[in-house]
Amino acid sequence: MTEPEILKVAAGSRTTAVAGAIAGMVREEKQVVLQAVGASAVNQAVKAITIARGYLEQDDIELTFIPSFSEIEIDGQERTALRFHVLPHSPRSELST
Amino acid sequence: MTEPEILKVAAGSRTTAVAGAIAGMVREEKQVVLQAVGASAVNQAVKAITIARGYLEQDDIELTFIPSFSEIEIDGQERTALRFHVLPHSPRSELST
Repeated sequence: MTEPEILKVAAGSRTTAVAGAIAGMVREEKQVVLQAVGASAVNQAVKAITIARGYLEQDDIELTFIPSFSEIEIDGQERTALRFHVLPHSPRSELST
Repeated sequence: MTEPEILKVAAGSRTTAVAGAIAGMVREEKQVVLQAVGASAVNQAVKAITIARGYLEQDDIELTFIPSFSEIEIDGQERTALRFHVLPHSPRSELST
């Protein structure tokens, strides 16, 4: 098991680029954790995961995610980040209950 | 299997109230789908799910969720909503791999 890599998603991140990174890491069986601070960044992170789900359909991999709060420091200030632990599931039928 | 109930989350929704609704529905084994339009609403939805995870820890229920895009009409205009299909898992150990 490798250490999870934390992808920092910003308000200006391109969702398709982040989605491509997620899909690539999932295919390589790496653990993926996204981190976002602020509503716009959180929105980009969720959209990126949604797009990555489409990319991985052909691989028969279903993505779900677990969100958590994380206290981080930015420019000396405490901020609450949202982290998204991406979980690949296969086969899809596991999730249909 | 009941039809999923769609909880509409707005930018001004109280996250703890939405989290309480999610936790209640999951405990009653109802399917939960959240719908959010716009970055602020998406952010509130993700925060509500994260808080609901805390509420359900004592029940030994682990929540994950699947995001999807959904085209909806608001005031005659096409908008893209994000939907979050909440998936309860139990026991927790299933997700620890």
